[in-house]
Amino acid sequence: MIPARIGELASWLKALRRATREKLRDTDERRRFFEAIVDGPAAQRFVDGDAQGARRIAQQRLATTSAAPRAAGDVTLVGAGPGDPELLTLKALRALQDADVILYDRLVAPEVLDLARRDAARICVGKAAGTAGTTQEEINALLVKLANQGKRVVRLKGGDPFVFGRGGEELQALAKAQINFSVVPGITAALGAAAYAGIPLTHRDFAHSVTFVTGHAQGHGEAPGPEPDWRTLAKPGATAVFYMGLARLDHIVEKLLQHGAAATRPTGIIAQGTTANQRVITATLATIREVLSGANVESPGSAHRG
Amino acid sequence: MIPARIGELASWLKALRRATREKLRDTDERRRFFEAIVDGPAAQRFVDGDAQGARRIAQQRLATTSAAPRAAGDVTLVGAGPGDPELLTLKALRALQDADVILYDRLVAPEVLDLARRDAARICVGKAAGTAGTTQEEINALLVKLANQGKRVVRLKGGDPFVFGRGGEELQALAKAQINFSVVPGITAALGAAAYAGIPLTHRDFAHSVTFVTGHAQGHGEAPGPEPDWRTLAKPGATAVFYMGLARLDHIVEKLLQHGAAATRPTGIIAQGTTANQRVITATLATIREVLSGANVESPGSAHRG
Repeated sequence: MIPARIGELASWLKALRRATREKLRDTDERRRFFEAIVDGPAAQRFVDGDAQGARRIAQQRLATTSAAPRAAGDVTLVGAGPGDPELLTLKALRALQDADVILYDRLVAPEVLDLARRDAARICVGKAAGTAGTTQEEINALLVKLANQGKRVVRLKGGDPFVFGRGGEELQALAKAQINFSVVPGITAALGAAAYAGIPLTHRDFAHSVTFVTGHAQGHGEAPGPEPDWRTLAKPGATAVFYMGLARLDHIVEKLLQHGAAATRPTGIIAQGTTANQRVITATLATIREVLSGANVESPGSAHRG
Repeated sequence: MIPARIGELASWLKALRRATREKLRDTDERRRFFEAIVDGPAAQRFVDGDAQGARRIAQQRLATTSAAPRAAGDVTLVGAGPGDPELLTLKALRALQDADVILYDRLVAPEVLDLARRDAARICVGKAAGTAGTTQEEINALLVKLANQGKRVVRLKGGDPFVFGRGGEELQALAKAQINFSVVPGITAALGAAAYAGIPLTHRDFAHSVTFVTGHAQGHGEAPGPEPDWRTLAKPGATAVFYMGLARLDHIVEKLLQHGAAATRPTGIIAQGTTANQRVITATLATIREVLSGANVESPGSAHRG
């Protein structure tokens, strides 16, 4: 059944190519049009047996495409998810395939970048922890510059753009420069790692809230951030997730114990979460360092208590 | 270019259908095989020009398919995201298309369910707030029963399964019954709504952590939950997100003010987040109720402060 339907789809697309040759003279425009048909509702309808609906959608798209002047550029902040490329959302995939330029962080998986259009420009603006790399101000300026050139820009960030991603600062820069922007959320590391490790973040019997804090003393990338509210994080009945916490594990454990957390509190470390190399170490708050030292774990990891 | 490639793919699939007619006699098995080819790496390779690689993958798949006895059933907990069907992950889409049975919550968008296989059984186990519906114990028992029948079961939950989704309780039941399970994370409402409203959850200058709590006095669905830690939520420099908070807005605002939150604190309500009907109301903690009463907003919504 499926091969037959794909065959009919191919015939229709061939006919459509002949029919649109005159109207779509620009190569980029033609490619975009056919991508929108093949990846979008038109092909879906056709395969579902609604050829008339498919033709209507294609006609509408053609009318819009050929009527529209080259639009102003824009920027989409896209969450790439925590590691597994399959955790990309459908919306993020579409944004990647529509982008002319992609500015990506070091932590974004290469397999996610591979999902972008082959001819899209890729610019790494990522910074490894502790190195300078491109500054946030330089990234903001680059986003504005590219959008003002009429480019469709995707700013691809590990996890979710609004959880320790400095996406807010980028939006402020774009708003100030009057650039159109939108945000596509991503699976943040805490959710991805918890799901793959089978550790619920909330549970009726154990944790009625969940808090995300950064584990390192520096704000994400550059500026020093304040110490977290240890007394609150030490309280029972709630889950605390420390992003990038592995390098400061000693400090985190000591502070929590000092502020009244139980030594028996369940504690887990998830490294390389959702990737093929995911490591999950579970112990108690008192024993986690000892258990970890027997394992061979590399950052980035997050310490997590439930 | 695209139509030509699809045409070649169709020819190959036709040939493959003839070649596998003998080996795959079961309709379901045949359908699964071709779905795996069309949706998976084989078709992708073929379209990318690596016909030999595509053939190798198809042969491997065929060998596995015809050799494997009917596998034991399993359960995949899948996060459906907050509303917009495009926020489904690629992994969730694949799980939906592989499922024999789908148990879904009331809050899951119909458009997400439409992405499942047409012949998959769909069972609504959702409960509207305040109504009894299927109990959690009944859901747990049904998951175990279906998996023991050899079914591939998807438990489709709004948002993320591990954030106020009672996914942890379902996993406990499955583990106890020795059913294979896995978890696919979803975009939780806080992340989806924040992204679509353009409101960062953390920001270097304003909020160094984010906490998710439930806004209603009852735990998700049924059991009464404890009051949240108001003193902590009232503190500045952190974002608090109340899930399902609209019905208890008065209570939330009063408690936060009583516990020392500034009256001028930025406060937002996002209703129907990420859907076409999304509403965003922003004000201060002191004025949010007045501003809301001038608007016409329906649950589910989340009160949010940054």
